[in-house]
Amino acid sequence: MSTYQAPLRDMQFVLKELAGIDEVAKLPGYEDAADVWESILDEAGAFATGVLDPLNRVADKEGCTFVDGKVTTPKGFKEAYKKFADAGWIGLPVPAEYGGQGLPQLLLGPTLEMWNASNIGFANGPLLNQGAIEAIELVGSDEQKNKWIPNLVSGKWTGTMNLTEPQAGSDLAQVRTKAVPSGDHYLITGEKIFITFGEHDMAENIVHLVLARLPDAPEGVKGISLFIVPKMLVDDNGKITEANDVICAGIEHKLGINGNPTCTMKFGEKGKGAVGYLVGEANRGLEYMFIMMNAARFSVGVQGYAVADRAYQHSLEYAKERVQMSDAATRDKTPVRIIQHPDVRRMLMWQKANLEAMRALSYYTAASLDLSHKHPDEKVRKAHKAFVELMIPVVKGWCTENGVELCSTALQIFGGMGYVEETGIAQQYRDVRITTIYEGTTGIQALDLVGRKLIRDMGATATTVIKDMEKFAKEAAAHENADVIAIGEALLKSIATLAEVSQWIGMNAMGDLRKAFACSVPYLKLWGITAGGWQMARAAKIAAEKIASGDADPFYAAKITTAKFYASHVLTQGAWYKRQIIDGSGDVMTLPEEAFELDRKMTVTA
Amino acid sequence: MSTYQAPLRDMQFVLKELAGIDEVAKLPGYEDAADVWESILDEAGAFATGVLDPLNRVADKEGCTFVDGKVTTPKGFKEAYKKFADAGWIGLPVPAEYGGQGLPQLLLGPTLEMWNASNIGFANGPLLNQGAIEAIELVGSDEQKNKWIPNLVSGKWTGTMNLTEPQAGSDLAQVRTKAVPSGDHYLITGEKIFITFGEHDMAENIVHLVLARLPDAPEGVKGISLFIVPKMLVDDNGKITEANDVICAGIEHKLGINGNPTCTMKFGEKGKGAVGYLVGEANRGLEYMFIMMNAARFSVGVQGYAVADRAYQHSLEYAKERVQMSDAATRDKTPVRIIQHPDVRRMLMWQKANLEAMRALSYYTAASLDLSHKHPDEKVRKAHKAFVELMIPVVKGWCTENGVELCSTALQIFGGMGYVEETGIAQQYRDVRITTIYEGTTGIQALDLVGRKLIRDMGATATTVIKDMEKFAKEAAAHENADVIAIGEALLKSIATLAEVSQWIGMNAMGDLRKAFACSVPYLKLWGITAGGWQMARAAKIAAEKIASGDADPFYAAKITTAKFYASHVLTQGAWYKRQIIDGSGDVMTLPEEAFELDRKMTVTA
Repeated sequence: MSTYQAPLRDMQFVLKELAGIDEVAKLPGYEDAADVWESILDEAGAFATGVLDPLNRVADKEGCTFVDGKVTTPKGFKEAYKKFADAGWIGLPVPAEYGGQGLPQLLLGPTLEMWNASNIGFANGPLLNQGAIEAIELVGSDEQKNKWIPNLVSGKWTGTMNLTEPQAGSDLAQVRTKAVPSGDHYLITGEKIFITFGEHDMAENIVHLVLARLPDAPEGVKGISLFIVPKMLVDDNGKITEANDVICAGIEHKLGINGNPTCTMKFGEKGKGAVGYLVGEANRGLEYMFIMMNAARFSVGVQGYAVADRAYQHSLEYAKERVQMSDAATRDKTPVRIIQHPDVRRMLMWQKANLEAMRALSYYTAASLDLSHKHPDEKVRKAHKAFVELMIPVVKGWCTENGVELCSTALQIFGGMGYVEETGIAQQYRDVRITTIYEGTTGIQALDLVGRKLIRDMGATATTVIKDMEKFAKEAAAHENADVIAIGEALLKSIATLAEVSQWIGMNAMGDLRKAFACSVPYLKLWGITAGGWQMARAAKIAAEKIASGDADPFYAAKITTAKFYASHVLTQGAWYKRQIIDGSGDVMTLPEEAFELDRKMTVTA
Repeated sequence: MSTYQAPLRDMQFVLKELAGIDEVAKLPGYEDAADVWESILDEAGAFATGVLDPLNRVADKEGCTFVDGKVTTPKGFKEAYKKFADAGWIGLPVPAEYGGQGLPQLLLGPTLEMWNASNIGFANGPLLNQGAIEAIELVGSDEQKNKWIPNLVSGKWTGTMNLTEPQAGSDLAQVRTKAVPSGDHYLITGEKIFITFGEHDMAENIVHLVLARLPDAPEGVKGISLFIVPKMLVDDNGKITEANDVICAGIEHKLGINGNPTCTMKFGEKGKGAVGYLVGEANRGLEYMFIMMNAARFSVGVQGYAVADRAYQHSLEYAKERVQMSDAATRDKTPVRIIQHPDVRRMLMWQKANLEAMRALSYYTAASLDLSHKHPDEKVRKAHKAFVELMIPVVKGWCTENGVELCSTALQIFGGMGYVEETGIAQQYRDVRITTIYEGTTGIQALDLVGRKLIRDMGATATTVIKDMEKFAKEAAAHENADVIAIGEALLKSIATLAEVSQWIGMNAMGDLRKAFACSVPYLKLWGITAGGWQMARAAKIAAEKIASGDADPFYAAKITTAKFYASHVLTQGAWYKRQIIDGSGDVMTLPEEAFELDRKMTVTA
């Protein structure tokens, strides 16, 4: 069996050389990071390999079971969650006053990557728990913070996010769950679906963060409030008193991520309503969700490439072992290991190059998130905030779309063995498929990118980032190293395409918003490959300079080769996206809705 | 629940206007086709919708069970197989002398499409059965033909193909199963894996076609012979006498196609060997397989887009019903059906355009296959044979790779509902994934295309086809209809790219075969989109002329719109493939094998 090994060297390189962990560690409150980040990588890698990875296959096979409202998680999950909490992983980004370690978001990049690569079903628990902690930390009262957060950090309790309802998926304006004031609390009634770890056996209490409407709330997005609705009620001393009126009505049978239960939750089924506590101000629930959204979308972006990285490792291992067919380029008929076949090698390089670009762009964005929160200079904070806002839909959309495609590539390398569940690679193919959907589908990310990030500020942020990338690409294209020059030139082309297409969309948005949105997904992908290419080009330049200065680490030569492959195979997609957007946006809405079914009924010939 | 409806109008159009069924029906022996083809479409559509489609979901859920060597197929399969045989569908292309209908291969296009769209798990039974019939028909003795074929056509027995062994997947030269002469028969010992319907409960006997080696056989591909090895021995009167020494040792737990059992077969486990009968001459087994390969690969190509067509229909239905989010292009806040959102519309058009192109190219190729077999003029036969040889890896590789991607697109339209198995769309996503693997992976198809079809005849056939396409594209670009002109011009660009890249590969093959093979898959895809675009352009031109001549069928306007979308969204991929091949082939093998793991171990910083 394949064992996950975190790509620690690449993580180290990206954190230090590309994302600037040294700068982040200078931010107020993050001073400890400088000393501990490398040991955190080491320990997290060991935890992922030693504790989470061995549970991944069994969790997929066994899944979760639902009997009489109770959910049993896969064997070992409960113990693993305790170990995870005890090791301090839940508290990594949580302030020390609530029992956390107060470390930068940047370190969430590699740690989330390791948890999700080794066991995405398990990792979804801490991910949603983190969301609940952040929500309370962000807008809860001091009393709420003290009452709920420490137990969520210690692993004694877990947290969930209850947003979706059958009629309210992408469109949270349609939320119907009701909250009626009743003394110091509210009574909640309604149904939520797709609730990750909504019910389970890993902790003594579950703290649900629930979106609901007050009786007098305005319609739409501005009438939704946020509530804490615990599974078990807790008294002022933090002791559990009795069960709240919250039940799990069932769990979904899903394509993948079978390790985590996906629950239908019913509030107030037994009587007048479940006890809930308003978090922050009334009617501002969706606004709070939007503030937290950057972190959540970033996390799912990381999931996308993390699962793909696991698949890549597995396919690499298989390609190095499986002997089949002779080398087509020689007369020798002896079968060779399939990694020696050009097409298999291309599939491995395709995975490797894309993965390294996604990792680099994700960590780089996470560093910017830290700078946007903590930098002492407001101007710097603002600039980073604008960059992060632009980049989050790109990280989420591109890394997950790419992740789905890469897992399919990894499976392909296994041939027939990839299609049987025995090998394990099919699990990654099934697991990763959720990532382009939850926390906002790729279409929603692209709408956000074009509508909120490009058009709303008239392209100002996009132009700034494009100029920054262009400045660097010109430096690379004028470098002394021939490979860096080639990479820089390919990047320049991609940037020019991005600039041209951005302008085209901006101009067309004036006349016909539908046309501007029609190819928003190819536009998002163009941003992804270009920004990823920028990071790969930066990596190549740094690597070339290390080599030139006498550094003998072979990692650097491999980085240049990988970046060069990225430039010729990945960056070149821009030529297609451009034509699709500029030539093709007008062709998206022209077929009338009713014409879609004209292919059905035969014409009676005379 | 979604119900499959065969796209009969499009099938009718493609058969008549693009693939030339009238010409095929003039071939000797195929005269009946002219009168019956439309009613065959109608009846096949009704059978797919009425009999096969209702069993599809339940077959996936229930799967096959294996107990003590016996395999039980999903509920309803046995009865459906009887109906399928009784309706004459097995015998469609089989000569009348063996109980078949003797109809053209061309009609296999739409019928295979319908069987596989409605129920690929079931359809794999007749597909492999067809392979067994063809093998015996092709090289069996008259006695063998009379003994085995009629019962395979009537559905009383079924046939299988036993090729793969654990060490012999893509590489059949590694087959180790042994055949020792013993009187008038042979004794077979060995293990075969991945045998579709290798054991089941749908018929009283199973006729295995098995590749094995004689004791004195030369090594490699030229030492493999083909045998008939029945599950139950049959006397000279066609009566079953006793069980042969053939057992099913287990079935695979697969990602999809759960309706069909995928068996491990053991021959000669109980004693000295299973009784087998040599088919054709000794040591020519692989050669026979190669002759049958065109039909088999064609069939799997059809499977690829057929499953995707089922997914498309389902996603279209969902998009027309699901209400979510207001129209981003207006100020009206009322939620609309998601088909009105540009990104969803783009995903639907993307599916529709690709599907119609794949259908057209597949049927067109099938017609050519008929012409290559039956045309009275040898020159014409030869020209069609060359075309088919070139196009088969394209149909197989492109339609399946595309099929996988399109099923993912269909799933995406469902959002969260796509990820739960309840909706059913996840089944298509799982089912279709096998199609790029069996009957030769995409890499194998691409190797065939570049090595056997392009390089071997120095590009002669490719050049002929490119010139034919170019001639047509020029006509289209000079048409009076503006849309046809635009489509023709886009096609001309794609053809020019294909010509340039073909020449580049040919030139590089001289110096470095690895480089020629490195981007053989993108090259195959370039062929696919271009040849598919050629068919779409032909369709658009015909449609424009129909409209100009006063035909009011709205199907034609929809065809032009779809072809226009194809031109701007699908054909434009060529720009990327070209850069990947010309700029990127040299970057595929440059990273040394051992450098793939340099990303693992952290460097200890000083």
